[in-house]
Amino acid sequence: MNRQWQLASRPAAEPRTADFRLRELAIPEGPRRGEVLLRNRYLSLDPYMRWRMNDAKSYAPPVGLGEVMVGATISEVVASEAEGLAPGDLVVAGGGWQDYALQPAAAVRRIDSDGVEPIAYLGALGSPGFTAYAGLMKIAQPQPGETVVVGAATGPVGSMVGQLARSAGCSTVAIAGGAEKCGLARSHFGFDAAVDHRDANFKDRLAAACPKGIDVYFENIGGPVLDAVIPLLNDFARVPVCGVISQYNGAAGMPATTPLDTLMRNALVKRLTLRGFIVTDFAEYRDEFIAKVAPLVTSGAIARLEDVVDGLERAPEAFVGMLRGANRGKLIVRID
Amino acid sequence: MNRQWQLASRPAAEPRTADFRLRELAIPEGPRRGEVLLRNRYLSLDPYMRWRMNDAKSYAPPVGLGEVMVGATISEVVASEAEGLAPGDLVVAGGGWQDYALQPAAAVRRIDSDGVEPIAYLGALGSPGFTAYAGLMKIAQPQPGETVVVGAATGPVGSMVGQLARSAGCSTVAIAGGAEKCGLARSHFGFDAAVDHRDANFKDRLAAACPKGIDVYFENIGGPVLDAVIPLLNDFARVPVCGVISQYNGAAGMPATTPLDTLMRNALVKRLTLRGFIVTDFAEYRDEFIAKVAPLVTSGAIARLEDVVDGLERAPEAFVGMLRGANRGKLIVRID
Repeated sequence: MNRQWQLASRPAAEPRTADFRLRELAIPEGPRRGEVLLRNRYLSLDPYMRWRMNDAKSYAPPVGLGEVMVGATISEVVASEAEGLAPGDLVVAGGGWQDYALQPAAAVRRIDSDGVEPIAYLGALGSPGFTAYAGLMKIAQPQPGETVVVGAATGPVGSMVGQLARSAGCSTVAIAGGAEKCGLARSHFGFDAAVDHRDANFKDRLAAACPKGIDVYFENIGGPVLDAVIPLLNDFARVPVCGVISQYNGAAGMPATTPLDTLMRNALVKRLTLRGFIVTDFAEYRDEFIAKVAPLVTSGAIARLEDVVDGLERAPEAFVGMLRGANRGKLIVRID
Repeated sequence: MNRQWQLASRPAAEPRTADFRLRELAIPEGPRRGEVLLRNRYLSLDPYMRWRMNDAKSYAPPVGLGEVMVGATISEVVASEAEGLAPGDLVVAGGGWQDYALQPAAAVRRIDSDGVEPIAYLGALGSPGFTAYAGLMKIAQPQPGETVVVGAATGPVGSMVGQLARSAGCSTVAIAGGAEKCGLARSHFGFDAAVDHRDANFKDRLAAACPKGIDVYFENIGGPVLDAVIPLLNDFARVPVCGVISQYNGAAGMPATTPLDTLMRNALVKRLTLRGFIVTDFAEYRDEFIAKVAPLVTSGAIARLEDVVDGLERAPEAFVGMLRGANRGKLIVRID
C-alpha cells in the first residue's frame, strides 16, 4: 500500500495537523516508458509548503484539496523504464508526502556516491543549500571584509549563507529566534555574531553587531526584522529576497499587512529587481549617452520641452511652483 | 556685483519663497591656477534641490544655512587659468543660484557646438536625460515588446525614459498629474498611453493601460502610485528607483510615513539592490554549486545540522512545529 498525506483543508493562518489527511492507496501502476517508480526514504519539510497550501497565485501552483502534499525526497528506484536509472539507485526527487511515487526520469537526479550522506542532498547540498549559493554568490556577490546578515540563520538556507559568506571572507551576523538558536549559530555554524529577534532591544543589538553597517542582507523573514535592517544598510548594499517567513502564515490570498509586506511578497514571487541609483554612479557611460542621444535630439526624434523662466530673481518662486507640479517640461531659469 | 540666492531657513514641509534670501556680493576673486570664473547664463531647477534643503544625510551633503543654493548651470567662461578653456567658451557647470561662480576646471564640461541648443544640456542631454539613460538602459535593460511605465512622465527625466523606451521597441505608459500633462505625454512625448494619478479610478485605469502587465517601472514618485504599480508587475520586472518625489516635501530628517517609504528612500539614497529569486531560476549553476560545495561538506568545512523525525505519519506535526520554529536545522522525515 501507499500511505499518502493529502491536503484536507486550507488553513486560514497557522496550519493544524487536521489540515492534512492520511490515505492508504494502491501503489501506483507502472512505470511506463521514461518513468521510474520510487520508494521514498526521506522527505524534506520546508516553509514554502505553507504557501502551497493557500489557493493563491505564486511561483508554483497551489496543492489542490485532496491532492498529495508536495515535497522533495531521497528515494530509491524500485522499477525503471528509463535509461541510466536502475533499481537500487538513490535519487533526489519530488516524491511528495507518501511512500511511493511514479516520476518521469527527467524529474529525478541520481545521487552519485561521493562520500556524502544522502540526506545532505535535502539540505546543505539540496535546494536549501543551492538557494543559499544562488542568492549569496550570484545575486549578492559578497566581497571580502563585507558584513553579511542572515535571517533565519540556523535554518538550512540561512546556515549555508553564513558559512558560504564566511568562506568568502565576510563578517557574518546571524538573526535567529531565541538564545538556543543564537548559540547554535555561533558554535555550530560559525557566525561571528548572533542576535535574537525576540529580544526587546533587537534593533540596538543588531546595530551593535554590525559596527560597519550591513552590505548584504539575505532576506528570509520580512516584517519587523526587515524594518530593523533597513537603516543599517550601507551604500550599494544588496538584499536577495529568498523568503518572507513572517508572511507564510497569512490567510489564503495572503493579505499583507503593510505596503512593504506587499512589495516584499511581490519581489519574491515575481523575482523583481528594485535598484536605487544616482546618476553620478554611472559617469563612465556619459560619453556613450551623448554619442547615442545627441543625434536623436538634434534630429528631433527625441522631443524636448523646456519651461524657461526669466530672471534669477524669480528662481525661488519657480522652484516652489515646480514642487507643486506647476511647470511643463524642464524648468530652467534664464539668469539675465 | 554677484546676485546670489542663499538658503535662509530649512522648510518643514513645502518650501516657501521666504526660505531663500537674495544677497548682492562682490564678484569672486580669481581665477587661480586650474580654475575658471564663470558667468552663469541658465540655471536648472530640479526636485533633488528640495532634499538638499534638509539637514539630513543623503547622497550629497545638505546646503548650509546662509550658503548659496546649488544647481547646474550653462555658463560662460569669463576668465580662465585652465588649459583648454578660454573666455567665451560655454560650459555645463554647477554654478549655483547666482550670477558668477569660481570653479575648478575639472568640475565643468565644455559644450561643443554640435547643433544642439545649449540649454538642452540641462535637460535632455544633461543630468536629467543621462539619469533616464542610466536607469533605463543600464539598470532596467528593456527588451522589445515589454511594457515600460514611467512616473512623472512629462518631467525632464520621465519624458526621456519614455522616448528611450519607445526607441527600444517597448510599449510606454505615462503616469502624470492632470489631463493636460497626460495629453502632453501622448502628443508631445509620444507615450502610447497616459494615466492621471489624480484620477479617482487611477488603479483601474493603470491596469487597463497595461493589459500585458508591467515589465519596467521607472520609479520617480513613491507612495500611492507605487502601491498601484506593484500588483501589476510581471515576473522578472525591474524597478530602477530614481526618485521619490512624494517624499521630498517631508520635514527635515524626512520621516517616512510607512515602512515602504523608508525602504524606497533608503533604496535611492544608498543605491540598494533588492532582488527576489527562486532557486529554480538558477538551474544552470547547480553543477557548479555541487562541484564547489560538496567537497566542503565532505571535509566538514561546512557544518550540517539535520533534525530527522521518524515516520511518515508524523509529517504534519513536524511541519506545523517547524513553522513555529520548533526544529533545529534541516527538518527531514525518515519515512519508514
